Amino acid sequence: MIKDKLFAWFKEGTITIPSFLFSHYKAMGLNEEEVMLLLQLHNFRENGNEFPTPGQIAERMTFGEQQCLGMVQRMVQKGFIEIKEEYPGSILHESYSIEPMFEKMIECFLKTQNEAEIVKNAADNE
Amino acid sequence: MIKDKLFAWFKEGTITIPSFLFSHYKAMGLNEEEVMLLLQLHNFRENGNEFPTPGQIAERMTFGEQQCLGMVQRMVQKGFIEIKEEYPGSILHESYSIEPMFEKMIECFLKTQNEAEIVKNAADNE
Amino acid sequence: MIKDKLFAWFKEGTITIPSFLFSHYKAMGLNEEEVMLLLQLHNFRENGNEFPTPGQIAERMTFGEQQCLGMVQRMVQKGFIEIKEEYPGSILHESYSIEPMFEKMIECFLKTQNEAEIVKNAADNE
Amino acid sequence: MIKDKLFAWFKEGTITIPSFLFSHYKAMGLNEEEVMLLLQLHNFRENGNEFPTPGQIAERMTFGEQQCLGMVQRMVQKGFIEIKEEYPGSILHESYSIEPMFEKMIECFLKTQNEAEIVKNAADNE
Repeated sequence: MIKDKLFAWFKEGTITIPSFLFSHYKAMGLNEEEVMLLLQLHNFRENGNEFPTPGQIAERMTFGEQQCLGMVQRMVQKGFIEIKEEYPGSILHESYSIEPMFEKMIECFLKTQNEAEIVKNAADNE
Repeated sequence: MIKDKLFAWFKEGTITIPSFLFSHYKAMGLNEEEVMLLLQLHNFRENGNEFPTPGQIAERMTFGEQQCLGMVQRMVQKGFIEIKEEYPGSILHESYSIEPMFEKMIECFLKTQNEAEIVKNAADNE
Repeated sequence: MIKDKLFAWFKEGTITIPSFLFSHYKAMGLNEEEVMLLLQLHNFRENGNEFPTPGQIAERMTFGEQQCLGMVQRMVQKGFIEIKEEYPGSILHESYSIEPMFEKMIECFLKTQNEAEIVKNAADNE
Repeated sequence: MIKDKLFAWFKEGTITIPSFLFSHYKAMGLNEEEVMLLLQLHNFRENGNEFPTPGQIAERMTFGEQQCLGMVQRMVQKGFIEIKEEYPGSILHESYSIEPMFEKMIECFLKTQNEAEIVKNAADNE
């Protein structure tokens, strides 16, 4: 029985997130609640649910359904989430992608690197 | 140069977080801002800083120093963070540990499992 | 362009493996080549290929197709891999599961824990 | 007690490895046993041991001490491992670094990307 519990825990799994996201989400224009929403969508997807309903999201967050829907819409408008629509077998299949957020993260990383280089070069030239 | 940038990104590293934390922090009595604070402390520690100052935390969060300090204190009171004090070489070395949060997470997991079993047994007996 | 390369690297992704597997695969009766085969199957699955051909496996390992097939068969016989067969829409869908290996890992962990307790209790009683 | 076992398992931790390493170690000139050795050193380091002895490595691998030592030396010669020597407080502190292996991995990734581009451009020009 103890083995079953341990294996059940093991199967819950993990998600792996770039350290840089934690140190730079503020610089990317996100607040704590927005990052958590994006990570929730990431986690749902990793567990096989690519298009959670506002109700499913609200179950895991401290916001109601309407608020969750509003946050998702705001993240779409700000370019952090993309809603993908596909028609396999002529049925609409929708999914959330947070790749745009990860693209912004890479852009932020390059910006940070370039700024660090400029500072370094200025110091070297003094 | 492109190689340097890629390697610099690689060295930024990742942090790995139990999926269960994302699906159950609300059940554990935490809100989004509190989870993010705890994950920030986790991330600092993984990167070699075991006792970030309120100022260092505030740089990465959308809160000021005083608010960060207040949140840390509240998390200590609620039993999610422990402040460890050691005296190697008779100098005080302080560090934040979020192991208590992970212990609460394990407790929450076992509670969830037991509740699922009770529901299942009740259904089997009907 | 540098951004594209970085994002391409990011999308390559990571796999997360229990530390315990590295420290105890020998105790579980596996050698280096067998662990790598199992991790290859894990990695294929995480990237959407649940039933790689011997040829696909051989491309990534220092063994030929026949050897890869032989190793997979031996791992099935020894109970580390399960071949799952499903018939969705009456078409055979096969997949490799390495859950049996992870179950053995959990068993090995519990055995290790129990042995440590016995040693500890014996020391306490002396 | 079940909680203690679960928490003990949780504390064993995980290691996160780039998927690309699994799909390209052969292209990088490594075999299965060498990758496992490198990942063992990585795992030791993540768990606080930066300079495991041949005996400690041999405990976890299917090779004897002499063989482990020989493999480490070969990996140093081939440029996958670097031995770092520091003298904090005038005492020699040695550690293994597998950063050179990760650098080679990044180089291999860029080579793969460039080759894919050449193939693509050739196809576009036809």
